[in-house]
Amino acid sequence: MAVKNAMTSEFLHSAYGGESMAHMRYLTWATMAEKEGFPNIAKLFIAIAYAEQVHANNHFNVIAGETQGATVTAGAEFGTGKTVDNLQGAIDGELHEVEQMYPVYLNTAQFQEEKGAERSFHYALEAEKIHADLFKKAQDCAREGKDIELTNVYICPICGHTILDEAPDKCPVCGVKKEMYKEF
Amino acid sequence: MAVKNAMTSEFLHSAYGGESMAHMRYLTWATMAEKEGFPNIAKLFIAIAYAEQVHANNHFNVIAGETQGATVTAGAEFGTGKTVDNLQGAIDGELHEVEQMYPVYLNTAQFQEEKGAERSFHYALEAEKIHADLFKKAQDCAREGKDIELTNVYICPICGHTILDEAPDKCPVCGVKKEMYKEF
Ligand SMILES: [Fe+2]
Ligand SMILES: [Fe+2]
Ligand SMILES: [Fe+2]
Ligand SMILES: [Fe+2]
Ligand SMILES: [Fe+2]
Ligand SMILES: [Fe+2]
Repeated sequence: MAVKNAMTSEFLHSAYGGESMAHMRYLTWATMAEKEGFPNIAKLFIAIAYAEQVHANNHFNVIAGETQGATVTAGAEFGTGKTVDNLQGAIDGELHEVEQMYPVYLNTAQFQEEKGAERSFHYALEAEKIHADLFKKAQDCAREGKDIELTNVYICPICGHTILDEAPDKCPVCGVKKEMYKEF
Repeated sequence: MAVKNAMTSEFLHSAYGGESMAHMRYLTWATMAEKEGFPNIAKLFIAIAYAEQVHANNHFNVIAGETQGATVTAGAEFGTGKTVDNLQGAIDGELHEVEQMYPVYLNTAQFQEEKGAERSFHYALEAEKIHADLFKKAQDCAREGKDIELTNVYICPICGHTILDEAPDKCPVCGVKKEMYKEF
């Protein structure tokens, strides 16, 4: 196995489960936002769903190793309310990751000297901070019955860094070039 | 909550977690199959990832209810070997769902008279049987260093029914019309 320590491995598995479910519910909530007349909030959900896919894929590749099954325990948000409620679920999930989950996972990876996990958790933590802010902005708009104003959303395919309207020359988190960003 | 019974609710949450992780790993394994020179096996992974998204989305919508967090425990497969190994992970996961998980979940939903969950578990169970067979066929090819032969893969967007080369006039599982099938 690419990871030597059981605790870091367990946290990678849990983070993989959490990111996979976040990816999935953002796609579901995007469909609901579209139907409710918020195409830009739908676009934001779809773009951030891709960022969560980047995180899940990174964790999966750090776990690496032989083909084997595992039981995964992870947090997720549920609910099929209005978009303003779904955005609250998104904010709650992101804030849990920013304030509790990823700081502890990152601290553990550093403590256990697991370099791959450290990078994967760091990438996710930095993106989730931005996701929490963007979902709060979207919710402020939805509360007033308005869509969020944006042209495109750009996602770094290496670390999930997320930015509105224009990609930076270099990703501030992982350093990848502007041309690599995926546009939504 | 749309589901009255705690056990059926727990099984829906677990199935949602399992399907979300299956969706995610099939996308990862698709990228690996593409790199290994198996574009049709990659296409099969991508199409079946969409079927798992349909299942996850169905379970999520049966859970429905208010915005709230939950801790989810679910099975998943891991591994970053060659495509022939990744397909073994896919087969193991699908067979667990076909032989153990979904029959018990479906039986419980019937026992607890949870109609929405019964339909959602039934749809998934029927699709997973086909997935297990298709992944076995793909693995037989990969073992000989060959790609699987197929033109397109068709997925029913309502139940996840999966079929190669041509969609049926009506979905044999949920009855949806041919035109609704998503082509990969
Ligand atoms: Fe994430
Ligand atoms: Fe996020
Ligand atoms: Fe980046
Ligand atoms: Fe499924
Ligand atoms: Fe399946
Ligand atoms: Fe169907």
